[in-house]
Amino acid sequence: MKTLLTATVLLSGAVLALAYNPAEHACTTINIPDIPGYLTLKCDFHMHTVFSDGLVWPSVRVDEAWCEGLDGIAITDHIERHPHKAEGLTTDPNRSYEIARAAGQELDLLVVKGSEITRAMPPGHLNALFLTNATPLETANWEDAVKNARAQGAFIVWNHPGWERQITNGLVLWYPEHTWLREQDMLHGIEVINGRDYYPEAHRWAVERRLTLLGNTDIHPPLGMEHDTRRGDHRPMTLVFAKARTVEALREALFERRTAIYHGNQLIGDEQFLRPIYEKSIQWGKTTLVLRGRQRVWVRIGNSSDISYELERVSELKELETPRKLILPARKTALFEVRGTKAAEGRRKLAAAYRVTNLLVGPDKPVEISIPLDITFAASE
Amino acid sequence: MKTLLTATVLLSGAVLALAYNPAEHACTTINIPDIPGYLTLKCDFHMHTVFSDGLVWPSVRVDEAWCEGLDGIAITDHIERHPHKAEGLTTDPNRSYEIARAAGQELDLLVVKGSEITRAMPPGHLNALFLTNATPLETANWEDAVKNARAQGAFIVWNHPGWERQITNGLVLWYPEHTWLREQDMLHGIEVINGRDYYPEAHRWAVERRLTLLGNTDIHPPLGMEHDTRRGDHRPMTLVFAKARTVEALREALFERRTAIYHGNQLIGDEQFLRPIYEKSIQWGKTTLVLRGRQRVWVRIGNSSDISYELERVSELKELETPRKLILPARKTALFEVRGTKAAEGRRKLAAAYRVTNLLVGPDKPVEISIPLDITFAASE
Amino acid sequence: MKTLLTATVLLSGAVLALAYNPAEHACTTINIPDIPGYLTLKCDFHMHTVFSDGLVWPSVRVDEAWCEGLDGIAITDHIERHPHKAEGLTTDPNRSYEIARAAGQELDLLVVKGSEITRAMPPGHLNALFLTNATPLETANWEDAVKNARAQGAFIVWNHPGWERQITNGLVLWYPEHTWLREQDMLHGIEVINGRDYYPEAHRWAVERRLTLLGNTDIHPPLGMEHDTRRGDHRPMTLVFAKARTVEALREALFERRTAIYHGNQLIGDEQFLRPIYEKSIQWGKTTLVLRGRQRVWVRIGNSSDISYELERVSELKELETPRKLILPARKTALFEVRGTKAAEGRRKLAAAYRVTNLLVGPDKPVEISIPLDITFAASE
Amino acid sequence: MKTLLTATVLLSGAVLALAYNPAEHACTTINIPDIPGYLTLKCDFHMHTVFSDGLVWPSVRVDEAWCEGLDGIAITDHIERHPHKAEGLTTDPNRSYEIARAAGQELDLLVVKGSEITRAMPPGHLNALFLTNATPLETANWEDAVKNARAQGAFIVWNHPGWERQITNGLVLWYPEHTWLREQDMLHGIEVINGRDYYPEAHRWAVERRLTLLGNTDIHPPLGMEHDTRRGDHRPMTLVFAKARTVEALREALFERRTAIYHGNQLIGDEQFLRPIYEKSIQWGKTTLVLRGRQRVWVRIGNSSDISYELERVSELKELETPRKLILPARKTALFEVRGTKAAEGRRKLAAAYRVTNLLVGPDKPVEISIPLDITFAASE
Repeated sequence: MKTLLTATVLLSGAVLALAYNPAEHACTTINIPDIPGYLTLKCDFHMHTVFSDGLVWPSVRVDEAWCEGLDGIAITDHIERHPHKAEGLTTDPNRSYEIARAAGQELDLLVVKGSEITRAMPPGHLNALFLTNATPLETANWEDAVKNARAQGAFIVWNHPGWERQITNGLVLWYPEHTWLREQDMLHGIEVINGRDYYPEAHRWAVERRLTLLGNTDIHPPLGMEHDTRRGDHRPMTLVFAKARTVEALREALFERRTAIYHGNQLIGDEQFLRPIYEKSIQWGKTTLVLRGRQRVWVRIGNSSDISYELERVSELKELETPRKLILPARKTALFEVRGTKAAEGRRKLAAAYRVTNLLVGPDKPVEISIPLDITFAASE
Repeated sequence: MKTLLTATVLLSGAVLALAYNPAEHACTTINIPDIPGYLTLKCDFHMHTVFSDGLVWPSVRVDEAWCEGLDGIAITDHIERHPHKAEGLTTDPNRSYEIARAAGQELDLLVVKGSEITRAMPPGHLNALFLTNATPLETANWEDAVKNARAQGAFIVWNHPGWERQITNGLVLWYPEHTWLREQDMLHGIEVINGRDYYPEAHRWAVERRLTLLGNTDIHPPLGMEHDTRRGDHRPMTLVFAKARTVEALREALFERRTAIYHGNQLIGDEQFLRPIYEKSIQWGKTTLVLRGRQRVWVRIGNSSDISYELERVSELKELETPRKLILPARKTALFEVRGTKAAEGRRKLAAAYRVTNLLVGPDKPVEISIPLDITFAASE
Repeated sequence: MKTLLTATVLLSGAVLALAYNPAEHACTTINIPDIPGYLTLKCDFHMHTVFSDGLVWPSVRVDEAWCEGLDGIAITDHIERHPHKAEGLTTDPNRSYEIARAAGQELDLLVVKGSEITRAMPPGHLNALFLTNATPLETANWEDAVKNARAQGAFIVWNHPGWERQITNGLVLWYPEHTWLREQDMLHGIEVINGRDYYPEAHRWAVERRLTLLGNTDIHPPLGMEHDTRRGDHRPMTLVFAKARTVEALREALFERRTAIYHGNQLIGDEQFLRPIYEKSIQWGKTTLVLRGRQRVWVRIGNSSDISYELERVSELKELETPRKLILPARKTALFEVRGTKAAEGRRKLAAAYRVTNLLVGPDKPVEISIPLDITFAASE
Repeated sequence: MKTLLTATVLLSGAVLALAYNPAEHACTTINIPDIPGYLTLKCDFHMHTVFSDGLVWPSVRVDEAWCEGLDGIAITDHIERHPHKAEGLTTDPNRSYEIARAAGQELDLLVVKGSEITRAMPPGHLNALFLTNATPLETANWEDAVKNARAQGAFIVWNHPGWERQITNGLVLWYPEHTWLREQDMLHGIEVINGRDYYPEAHRWAVERRLTLLGNTDIHPPLGMEHDTRRGDHRPMTLVFAKARTVEALREALFERRTAIYHGNQLIGDEQFLRPIYEKSIQWGKTTLVLRGRQRVWVRIGNSSDISYELERVSELKELETPRKLILPARKTALFEVRGTKAAEGRRKLAAAYRVTNLLVGPDKPVEISIPLDITFAASE
């Protein structure tokens, strides 16, 4: 025990614990390779905080993103909705961004200023990204809100076009309002993925109408309540192929449509982005082989990425048996089994055609790849 | 596509998604049995929200607790600390409880009104539970704050007595202030577990000075950032042996010292509570055996609880080999191996003495149990 | 250190460690309820050991099954295949069963004597279960092998009818040989599930031709190489609705077609078995409700089984909004959200129609259930 | 349906499934870096098959090791023990190695020929590695067995010196027989880790008597029954710092004592090996900092290895607060928090001293490291 110490009252709270110490946490690396000429930045451009109808303080969004290994986020609280006004919380639409940005600076996470213009369909909900001031968006007419955002150079996204509550008789519709927005250069991107939902119509529109693809969470509660991130159940994210790791480079890439979506074990995007990601992920072992008769040989295929590529044979080869299906598991080395047939002897260069069913360039349209093999067929011993 | 629909602006937000739909979530059962005469209620009596220095809205605390299978929680925001005052958030110390209570009613979770009186050591931080009005606790003098809480019938807890920032030269101290509080009937419980920390001194004081044992989270960020609850990394909790599943019954049980602590794979508490929990968890297979010579037989031991009991042999038996160590895994059936020795033939009733090293009645003091066996020793064939 | 001890040579191996101590392991409970009149026994009737082309000693099959919580297994080594003959291993087709049976007796696991009659298609591979002597099956003519098995009262199963290597141009075929076998009472069951494969044609045949449904592993390597059993990736198994936990009762139930298949998160079988399993798994909370206007209320639904039931709404109710989809997670309590509409006031008994998409009574044919609700519609306050 | 096909009987088994197709499986990379001048090869030099008292076919040991990412294994069946002789299995002590070697060649896994000389204590069990012919080891006198192994150039290991069944009154003893073996150059290595057991005495002897450190499984059942390898519960392994990835290079490194042990989250070995592994695992962020008053800054620390390094502060710095404990999680980036004190202004080069408690150069003797920091202390703004 001890002798009596003077009890000093410390109302100032100087002895309080830190609310939350990120030093106890750590940041995971998301293994999706850069592609030639660009960094592959991992981003989530749609999320909420207590400053609209979300349930966490803005700094939590930064901590969650940092822990999961993201490069950037946008805070996009609803312009029109402030359910905590009764508790006195400010309705200034810039405030949640400011808090998140300060937290982001400490952890070197990019934070984009955004706002969600939240209206009935059409046009539904629109995110305005890269704002400088969200206040002018507080206006009754949605056209004015979008114009005021665009006047700041904002990038406008149509959110969750296939949301169950805003579709009509089960149909996801493109309205004249969207055509108008597009014509006015006031619609640039579309969410093909929102949370766990995939909208094939939005995917088709993105391809046909040349909209930027986005996949975001739209998260309201703590992220961990919807995603088991510790076990690889990552959030949906927008991959941005950027020239630098800056907010300005994110903006440039979004306007130039250099994005893809990482959702579950799928990548969704243009072939010019998905193909190099696949190719830089894969390390082929020796593919120059000698096969004696019906001998079986295994070719090693390493995959250094976090995506398990799912291969399906396009057509059989005459000279060679190759697997009908093959999974190249994330961060592992798989075996590709080839087996000789009754082929005539001699050396041949073959190409085994496969589709990668979880790399989608359009709805139901996978990337096709070719596996080059150099085989010398010999008589069995 | 479709013809033009009239665009109705819905500023009211009626078409908004619910912020967070608990219907997507589900509640786990914590398998710790009731004991004779009492329900075993699982509670966490220390946590924070954005209304002090926590990082989530109060309803999140209810959702987290409901998902994890708790019966009750206390909201205990700091009386003296309102870091979000600048954003306009009310400093009314009753408000976070009111929000949580409403959420609790929908999910049938008990919510206790509490406040943390947050001062330098001594007396350190004190939780006042079962308040009716937190406002009178806002006062400069800590003695007055405690008196005003006690005047409402509050149960007072000394929080994290071994907190690194409030100990002296590595020593956890009991101050005259604590003696005074105890003498004034203004100190009833003590946190032996706070978060992931265990304080052996607090455990010893609780036993010697007859304080109620508490184990709580003191959580500030979303729970999922500190506990991997999906994989059995449960929060520390206070088990309350209550006569009913009501707030009043919690209060009665706390004042009567009918609690234990569930922390990691440990239970900490009085033997009168730990022993029946162990006994109701375990189902013994057939323990009347015939052993021929050095024959080996396995006795099945089922464990229907979530606690993996860790058994260690107290002493060897002369007639029988039994395992030195044995784990009875949670929700599984284990095998207890017995093997005959060169014992004389005949039937004998034996008791194998074990200690259950993860049931602690005091610091380093495990519960001891006895395994009754009825063995007929026969000659080997 | 110590003085010199005499070195005694112990060539007999008496000081050796046990090869493998099951006491270190424990048995999980598979939570699928018994149904009225029958025990629900969990079985796997198809597996291999080193005595044919498997890769483990027969006792391993018993340990694996015991750890996973099975009640019974059949050892079904190939009659015609003994790749380890060169290493001297006996080709006696009874030996693997005898070793497994001895191991099974120690752990109280039922072991059935079987053999796989392994021929080209037709008739393909056939398992003969409940043999007394496998030796007479060693005969060139497959008809003779089946006859000799049947003469012992064997139950005959057509294994993996849709196996990629035995189908024709992608078609799974029923051959005249199978018709002949059926007519001779020499074909009783069919594998609808083999390993991770599901054969819809076999499922249809089982329903139409009244064959007993079986789902088995056909495991050759250690089970843990193909199933992550520690994380709920259980092996496919045949649920047998038996009058007792004996080999004879398994036999009676198989001949009487009282089986279902547990595969991934699916149950496949006759409605008379799947419906009571579902009903005994589910505990409904209070379904007598008062709804004021468009009020939302949550009804609790507990699920004590290991199967996460996947519900899909058959049709909407006029008076009430109920969820389009709902998962009732295994061993958890979920919330079923009901919400009032503009219904006239008054009390009504409603039945919400759902299909349970992972309970299959035929290919693409789920079990339909009805949720009874007793609602009093009141004006909103 | 289809018309009748001719039923061809295929007794030869040509239509049989492969017993087990490794192409379905994949190989993990164990992220422990190479060190300057040497490859870091991951090996397990002690395991059993059905050819002694193990429970799997030798090829399974190769598949298990390949899947887990090992570079090499030794098959070490007991010379004296053939429990499956009654089933006709050959007792030729060379056979299990030959089968494993063939499997290893297909998967490019190094397989070392070994045998376990299995006698009572002293000298206990000895592994002879790098044999050319195991048959001469079948001899009654253990000295002769070791001599015959040594005559082939074998590397001799004392297995599990602290095995519960071979110790005396709880003491792990070094016998004169071991001194004799050492003097005759017939004892080169010692198992400090066997399965999940650590023997501190063996560790001390290894350091003092300059024996090569080994950590092995001694596995008898399928590996998956004792290790949850899918979730990072890797087997204990011997890290060999080799000049090439060949059996001969393994042999050279073992005789030169260039090994360490990877066990759980620990590395055990000489500082000359552990330090470069740690240093090559860690990537420090910017450590040249400006601190204003009591400002807090986080320094990033990346860890590209599979080992989570556990740091503990050796002593406090006068000028700077640094964390008392810090974990650098495997394959993540952690934050090292530094905080200014009331230090005089100016620039100082500081070294923060830490011990890495899970890198053991001797029993209870961790590696010490120093973190260089270059801090400019400035006045707070």
